[in-house]
Amino acid sequence: MRNLNHLTITEAVLARHAETADPRVIEIMTSLVRHLHDFAREVRLTEAEWTKGIEFLTRCGHITDDKRQEFILLSDVLGLSMLTVAMNNDKPAGCTEATVFGPFHVRGAPHYELGADISNGARGVPCLVRGTVRGIDGAPVPHARMDVWQSDEDGLYDVQHAELDHAQARGILHADAQGRYEFRSILAVPYAIPHDGPVGDLLKATGRHPWRPAHLHFMIEAPGHETLITHVFRSDDAYLDSDAVFGVRQSLIAEWAEQPDGTCLVEYDFVLNPASEPARGGS
Amino acid sequence: MRNLNHLTITEAVLARHAETADPRVIEIMTSLVRHLHDFAREVRLTEAEWTKGIEFLTRCGHITDDKRQEFILLSDVLGLSMLTVAMNNDKPAGCTEATVFGPFHVRGAPHYELGADISNGARGVPCLVRGTVRGIDGAPVPHARMDVWQSDEDGLYDVQHAELDHAQARGILHADAQGRYEFRSILAVPYAIPHDGPVGDLLKATGRHPWRPAHLHFMIEAPGHETLITHVFRSDDAYLDSDAVFGVRQSLIAEWAEQPDGTCLVEYDFVLNPASEPARGGS
Repeated sequence: MRNLNHLTITEAVLARHAETADPRVIEIMTSLVRHLHDFAREVRLTEAEWTKGIEFLTRCGHITDDKRQEFILLSDVLGLSMLTVAMNNDKPAGCTEATVFGPFHVRGAPHYELGADISNGARGVPCLVRGTVRGIDGAPVPHARMDVWQSDEDGLYDVQHAELDHAQARGILHADAQGRYEFRSILAVPYAIPHDGPVGDLLKATGRHPWRPAHLHFMIEAPGHETLITHVFRSDDAYLDSDAVFGVRQSLIAEWAEQPDGTCLVEYDFVLNPASEPARGGS
Repeated sequence: MRNLNHLTITEAVLARHAETADPRVIEIMTSLVRHLHDFAREVRLTEAEWTKGIEFLTRCGHITDDKRQEFILLSDVLGLSMLTVAMNNDKPAGCTEATVFGPFHVRGAPHYELGADISNGARGVPCLVRGTVRGIDGAPVPHARMDVWQSDEDGLYDVQHAELDHAQARGILHADAQGRYEFRSILAVPYAIPHDGPVGDLLKATGRHPWRPAHLHFMIEAPGHETLITHVFRSDDAYLDSDAVFGVRQSLIAEWAEQPDGTCLVEYDFVLNPASEPARGGS
């Protein structure tokens, strides 16, 4: 274990994992170390570039707090998030597709009654959102828990407004016994992901724009069904084909129809996949 | 660019880099994205594991400050640091070999005269360290700048003692006109790398010990020569064959000889590689 060179070191590192009790840990660490080392050898990473990488990760860590998550953003722009979502959500035809979670979900959003206005003061064109939550058999899923979040007309989520001390344009609702849901919010607009930090510098260095097409986030949970994390996109958005985080699915695009009174209406029906191991007492 | 699946997404991400002006950036990002995606597909990374990865990196970031560098530690235990050092320091036979930089170097260490005691109050068995700095032709390198740092008898560097407000067991000296150097410090002892954070959890999960064999760090700079970053190890150390960061080179092992008065003596001669592009006015 002395005098390792840049080739022999890989097997030496892997040999250290021989005592690992958990075979999944071995599997993950083996693949991780091999790919990490192959990457460094393939590009002949210099010591200065290694230092830049350490500094980049350090900056990501230091800008991350309870309201900003630069590592999720990094995973998103590298396509790792969407890859992981796609690989783990291979649902039967007819189910609503999943997409990226993103860095702006907040636990403990306020609860609202059906029909309520979740914008809670967020600025934007008023919008009514409604539809149903059903199972793949077409039967309504009663009382599904719907966690909804979106940005305002400036393209910012509530947590990005430093002066704001309460939730805006996010909330938790429950569909009714017939699987119907309805709430008021605001028109979603395209926005740039936070690009004043290291991920923004990475986008700039690689000549990429930071824009995401307008969307509304949903996390829908119901007993006996897989949790669905997804967006509803706007059909008239210019960034549908160049989403900075690669999250667009054709089936998630809806018309956000302008109404005679200047407000808008989105109608979208969700179809949940049954859980592979149904919860005891689930629907 | 819609409906990407876990296979097609890789080329879609790479296509975004087509506008990148710097070919080196394209080269690095292409390899990085391919290996990152291949890793996730190869292990079929779950969403829960992805979340654990995000949390791990976040913890690394939050524990890192101006005195602790968890990302360097992570790179060290994964063998990436030593791989990068080995790949970039392929010196001619006869030159002193390089090893890992480690996370405990501090810029702006105090300057000392030759012969001084750099321990500055750090606890340990007194030790005299001396030798020469020469070029590969055998000629002395005059006035090389030597930045030296080490841990104390508890295996802790000064920056790991929260209550300490001054440098201990680290300092900058200059060899004399004949390339000779000499200073007093303390006996190096084996120590565990910081394992109370996420990297420690990783070592634990993979059944690895956190120990490094005893060593003294050197960074040696002289005009017209490559900067040498290395250690001098102790020949009687139990961890020479299982260094947690894979840094041991046989040629860097020296006898730390106990003297009749209970102190010890290390003699080590360094041989610097000429810079590939000699500095103007360099030796």
